[in-house]
Amino acid sequence: MATLIAHADISPVEDAEVLRKACKGWGTDEKAIINILGHRNAAQRKQIREAYEQLYEEDLIKRLESELSGDFEKAVYRWILDPADRDGVMANVAIKKSETDYRVIIEISCIHSSEELLGVRRAYQNRYKRSLEEDVAAHTTGDLRKLLVALVSAYRYQGDEVNARLADAEADILHKAIKDNSFNNDEVIRILSTRSKAQLNATFNRYRDDHKTSISKDFLGELGNDFQKALHATVRSISDPHKYYAKLLRDGIKRFGTDEDSVTRAIVTRAEKDLYQIKELYYKKNSVSLDDAVAKETHGDYKSLLLTLLGNEGY
Amino acid sequence: MATLIAHADISPVEDAEVLRKACKGWGTDEKAIINILGHRNAAQRKQIREAYEQLYEEDLIKRLESELSGDFEKAVYRWILDPADRDGVMANVAIKKSETDYRVIIEISCIHSSEELLGVRRAYQNRYKRSLEEDVAAHTTGDLRKLLVALVSAYRYQGDEVNARLADAEADILHKAIKDNSFNNDEVIRILSTRSKAQLNATFNRYRDDHKTSISKDFLGELGNDFQKALHATVRSISDPHKYYAKLLRDGIKRFGTDEDSVTRAIVTRAEKDLYQIKELYYKKNSVSLDDAVAKETHGDYKSLLLTLLGNEGY
Repeated sequence: MATLIAHADISPVEDAEVLRKACKGWGTDEKAIINILGHRNAAQRKQIREAYEQLYEEDLIKRLESELSGDFEKAVYRWILDPADRDGVMANVAIKKSETDYRVIIEISCIHSSEELLGVRRAYQNRYKRSLEEDVAAHTTGDLRKLLVALVSAYRYQGDEVNARLADAEADILHKAIKDNSFNNDEVIRILSTRSKAQLNATFNRYRDDHKTSISKDFLGELGNDFQKALHATVRSISDPHKYYAKLLRDGIKRFGTDEDSVTRAIVTRAEKDLYQIKELYYKKNSVSLDDAVAKETHGDYKSLLLTLLGNEGY
Repeated sequence: MATLIAHADISPVEDAEVLRKACKGWGTDEKAIINILGHRNAAQRKQIREAYEQLYEEDLIKRLESELSGDFEKAVYRWILDPADRDGVMANVAIKKSETDYRVIIEISCIHSSEELLGVRRAYQNRYKRSLEEDVAAHTTGDLRKLLVALVSAYRYQGDEVNARLADAEADILHKAIKDNSFNNDEVIRILSTRSKAQLNATFNRYRDDHKTSISKDFLGELGNDFQKALHATVRSISDPHKYYAKLLRDGIKRFGTDEDSVTRAIVTRAEKDLYQIKELYYKKNSVSLDDAVAKETHGDYKSLLLTLLGNEGY
C-alpha cells in the first residue's frame, strides 16, 4: 500500500502555474513545491511536466534543479521523474561512484517485476545511449561484476509454479558452495540470476529447513567481503522486499550525514507502492516510527518532502 | 527483402475451409496445404489459425501435426507459428539436444533486434513456464554456458552511435585474450554480450585494421573447440547475418540427410525478412542458386514447401 496522499481531480495547468510562480523572482517557495509535487502520483507529475513545458517552453525539471539545492534538490529530482527513468538515473549514479553501489543495482534487478526491470533498461538506453548492463560491466570487476550483470540482464519467469525437486537440488548446490567457501561458484550466480522468484523462495525455504539457518546469513558469513554482501542483499531483496527496505532505511538513518541517498531512494521509490507495509515493519523492528526517525534526523525542506511522501499532511 | 510471395486480400475463413478439406478423410492433400500456407504472411497465418479454431473447435496446428510427418511436418509446424513463438520452440529443441545446438541460441540472440529477442523470451515463458535463460543455463556448462546465458539475456542498445576510442581499447582487449589463448576471459564475454552491434562492428573493424585478419577467424584458430566455434558464430552473426545464413544453408545442404534442421530453420526464419539477399549471397559464394541446391537435395512435399518459401510459384 502506498503512503503517498495523491489529490484527485487536479488540474495540471493550474499546478504548472503554481510551480512557475514558486520558482519566479527572488527566492523560491519550497513549501508550494512540496505541497504540489508531494501530493501527485506519477501520472499526474508527468501531466504537470507536460503542461509546464507547453505553457512556458521550459523544462520544469531543469528549472527546479537550478532553483533548489542539496538533499532537497536530489529528492525532488528523483521524485518528479517517471519511475523507470528515475531508476535509470539512480542506477547510473550508483554505477559511477568510485565504488559501484551494488545495492541499487540489486534492488532494481531483484525487487522489480521482470517488466519493470525491462522498463528501466529501456529508460536507461533512452537517456544514456548505452545499455544498463554494459555500463554495469564496464564499471565493476570480478565476481561482483558477474553477479550484477547477470541480475540486471534477467527477465525472470513471473509465474507461481514451483518445482520442489529442483528447489531441493539447488538448495544442496548452494549449501555445498557455501560450505566450500566458493561463493563465486558459477552455479550460485546461475541460480540466483535465472530462476523465478517463486522458485528461489522455495529453494531458500528448503535451505532453512535443512540447515536451520537462513541462506542470506550463510552467504554473509562472519566478515563477508563485498561480493558476499551483494549475495546477501540479493537473497534478502528476493525473499522479503519490505524487510529489505526497512533495514535499508534503518541503516541509512543511523548513518545520516553520510547516507541520505539510501533514505531518499527508499522513500521516493516505494511511496507509491508499498511504503505503508515498510513503515509497519520498521516500527515492529525498531519500536520507533519511521516518520519520527526521519523527522529527528532530517531538516528543512528535505524533511518536509520526505514526511509528506510518508503520508503526513501539512508539511 | 522477403522471398515469400504472400497473396493479398485472402479470406481466413475460406483458407481454413480449404485446410480442413485437405486434412479430412483418407489421405492428406499436402499440395493444398503448401498452396495456402506457403503464400501467407505471419499475420495471415495467425488469422487462419484463429478462423480454423472458431469454425471447427480444433487446433489447426495439432491437426496438421497428426496428418503430416517427417521433415515436412517439422517445416510446416515451424512455419505456421508466430515468429517469436517459433523461435522459442526452436530454442527449446536446440537446448534439449544431447549437446545443445548453440547456433540456434546465438542466432536468436545476435541476429534479432533487442525487441525481437525480448519477444522470444516472452513467448518462451508463455509456452514453457520457465525463462529461456534458465533453461539454457541448466542444459549447458562451463564457458559455453557463460557465453550463451549472457547473449540470450542481452537487451542491447540499438542506436548507431559508436565510441571510436572504446572500439580501439576493446579491440586490444580481445586481441590480448586471443594471443594469450584465454578465449574464456570474462572480458571477451562481457564485450560480446553487452555492447551494441554498431559498437561491436566498429571494434571488429578496428581489429581487422590492426591485425590484418578477422577476429572471427582468430577466435576459431586452427582447431577450435565448441566454445571457440560459438565465439566464431557470435561474431559472424553480429557482423554479417546474411553471410552467416548463406554459410549455414551451404553447410546444411552439404550435410543433407543429417542436418535438415538448419536448412528448415534458415528458410522458415528468413523467408519473410531477408532471404532474398541471402539467396543472392549464396549464389555469389557457391555459383549455384540456393533454389537449385535445395531442389537437388530434397524431395517430395518438404521440397515443395521450401521452394515455395524461397519464392517459387507453382510448387
